[in-house]
Parts: sequence; structure tokens; C-alpha cells
Amino acid sequence: MRNKKKAVVLLSGGLDSATALYLARKQGYQTNCLIFDYNQRHQKEVNAARKIARVLNCKFQALKIAFPWKGSALLDSKLTMPSGGRLLANKIPSTYVPARNLIFLSFALAYAETIGAGAIFIGAHTQDYSGYPDCRPEFFRAFDKVASLGTKAGAGNKKIRIKAPLLNKTKAEIVRLAVGLKVPFELTWSCYRGGKTPCGKCDSCCYRAKGFQEAGIEDRFDDR
Amino acid sequence: MRNKKKAVVLLSGGLDSATALYLARKQGYQTNCLIFDYNQRHQKEVNAARKIARVLNCKFQALKIAFPWKGSALLDSKLTMPSGGRLLANKIPSTYVPARNLIFLSFALAYAETIGAGAIFIGAHTQDYSGYPDCRPEFFRAFDKVASLGTKAGAGNKKIRIKAPLLNKTKAEIVRLAVGLKVPFELTWSCYRGGKTPCGKCDSCCYRAKGFQEAGIEDRFDDR
Repeated sequence: MRNKKKAVVLLSGGLDSATALYLARKQGYQTNCLIFDYNQRHQKEVNAARKIARVLNCKFQALKIAFPWKGSALLDSKLTMPSGGRLLANKIPSTYVPARNLIFLSFALAYAETIGAGAIFIGAHTQDYSGYPDCRPEFFRAFDKVASLGTKAGAGNKKIRIKAPLLNKTKAEIVRLAVGLKVPFELTWSCYRGGKTPCGKCDSCCYRAKGFQEAGIEDRFDDR
Repeated sequence: MRNKKKAVVLLSGGLDSATALYLARKQGYQTNCLIFDYNQRHQKEVNAARKIARVLNCKFQALKIAFPWKGSALLDSKLTMPSGGRLLANKIPSTYVPARNLIFLSFALAYAETIGAGAIFIGAHTQDYSGYPDCRPEFFRAFDKVASLGTKAGAGNKKIRIKAPLLNKTKAEIVRLAVGLKVPFELTWSCYRGGKTPCGKCDSCCYRAKGFQEAGIEDRFDDR
């Protein structure tokens, strides 16, 4: 039987998905995390995701998926990582990975259907979709439809719902929410470069810094 | 630049996808095959797919993807494989794999976007969608939309089109088409059980046998 209060959470190890996880927990969901290792440059986020899942004692699946096609600065170290420039640029950045969220959501759907979960949480939000097409509200609405039509659950009128609770929030709002939910944000990893400490220069670091600054909260980093 | 005559073909090693490949070739597409090894019981189809791609001298990618969730008779040898019973049953069979076509199409979309292909071919057809929700025309229409909204190509008005040219054909029509296109059907593998020779009893064997019988053509099997 499908359990409305059982969810799969796409956990990347960053602040947004960790906040989505804590929010799902607060809403009473039994949370099952799904983590992807796709040879991203910032593979460090996979370990961060594991740590966060363990803090909440969540079940989790870490999937290694082949992504043999280059062309994204997140996958190919030969490509230049953009440095905070797109904060104003409003165009698709070179860190775009073709069909990534679609692949992640599709696996999450398989996981949810198999364990009888009624919801999938994803931490995508407003600043993402200024750049990534697969973070737009209309993309999630379209995915909701495809998920409903393409699964046994959906065909049997037991739809698995896609939840993107941060979609309309700014990074500063997410930071405040995370603090309120007691998200251990010192364990999260946002930097697109996989260095020892966050680079402070890539888009992801810039967004994060701006969010904490606007929220008036000091960021912490704990590389345990 | 996106090339309208460049395509990704989802190749499973069965008769339908091989026919879709030959059809794409006949329509003048430069074909790039995508093959999945997902620990299916009939892993033999992966080798069949490679052989077929090689006959046409196609580029191909064979992706090994983790599918750690059981619950489908195609993945779990502890489950009973249905034996031709569903030909009349018209309900979702136990060989259904949650979100499989969605996952396959999502990877195909990533591949297509990366290599600049303008189309994705899939060999799903009418008898499939009497059972599998992710073989229905409305599923493919919904996927077409999600593919358009979720990619850089789609956002840039260079849509990657989903083509399911066999969708409304019966198995007998596909057999006739395959013969006309000179598909080396003796190299294809349809049986859901991964034995030395086709079992002749599973749904897939039954559909195939019925198709060849109705088309008045003798099936061949060449296990080179």
C-alpha cells in the first residue's frame, strides 16, 4: 500500500536539499534519502549527504550512475568553472548537466514506487531556475504528469507527488528556514569545486555566501 | 548545433528496438545507440544489442545502471515470471519495472543533448501499452513536454523529439516491417528469461511467437 507519509528525498549534500529533508521530517514524513554519485567534480557532496542522512537516522540509497558524456563544467575538469558571474547573467551556466534533474527524479520515482512512498522531495529553488531549465516550476509540473502517467502507482490512482517546497524561496529565506529547522548546515557542502575547503568563488559558493549575508547569519563549515 | 538527422536509439536487443533502429537508419538518421545493463534477468539482451549495433556500424554507449530495488520479476529471480497469461489479461504484469522507460528516456535525452542529436527513437508499441503504463501514447506525449522544458536544447527552442514509430503497430506488423528493413532478427533476443535458448513461455516469447505466426514468417534464432 502507498503510504502518504512516506517520502523519498533527493539529497545532494548541499544546504537546499538538507533543508528539504528537514522540512519533510517536520511535516511528519518517514524519509528515505537518495544520493547520487555521478562523477561530479564535487564528489565531496556525496559524503556530506551521507553524514546528513545519518544525523537524522534516515534510510538512504547511494547510487553510482554512469554519466559518460562530458560538456558540463560539473563533470569535466578541463572546462572552466564560472566564478560568480552568473549572479546577474540570468542564462544557463556551463555547470548545467543535461537532463540531470530528470534522471534524478526518475530514479527517485522508481525508489518511491518500490517502497510505497507517496511523495518525492527535491530542494530546487528560485535562484536555480534563473539558470537551470530543469529547476523551473513548469518543469516540475510536467514531471508530475509524466510520473503519474508512467507508473503503476499513477495508473492505479495512487499518484506519487513531487514536492519542491523551496521553489519560491530566496537563498536567504532558505538559510533562515534551515536555522529554524536546526539543519546542521556546517555539514552541508555547496562548492562546485571539490577542494578541501569551499572555494568561495564558484556560483554555488557565491549564492550561499549571499544567502547567509542577507539572512544575517554566519556560515559554518565543519569538515569532519 | 543540433542536428535534426542525428538520433539516439534506445536499443534493448529485442526485435522492436532493432526495428526502430533500422527504421531510423532508413529515414536517414545518423544513429547512436544506447544500451542498458540494469541487472535484468535477461542480460543476454545486452549482448544482442551490441551485436545489432555493430551490424550497422553504429556508435553505441552501454550504460550500467544501478537498480537496487527489487519487486519486479525482471529483476528478481525469486519472483515468478508470468507465462503467456497476460496476452488476454490486460493488466500490469509482474515484469513491470518501476519508472524504467522514464529512466531510459532521461539518459537518452542527456546523451542526445550532449551529442547534439535532434531525436530519440524508442521501440515501444501497442501491445506493450496494454500492460505497461510507461508505454502508453500519453506517457510519451508527457515525456516530450518534460524533455522540452527540462533541457537547454528545449529552452533554446531546439527541441529533441521523442519518436516511437512502432507505437500503433501490432507485433505481426512489426515482424513484417523488420523483414522489409532486413533487420537481422535472428540476432535479436526477446525472452525475459536469460537462458541458453528462448523459453517460449514468458510473455515476451509468446508475443513474439504470435507476431511471427500472424505475419506468416518463420522466426530464426542465431546464438553466435
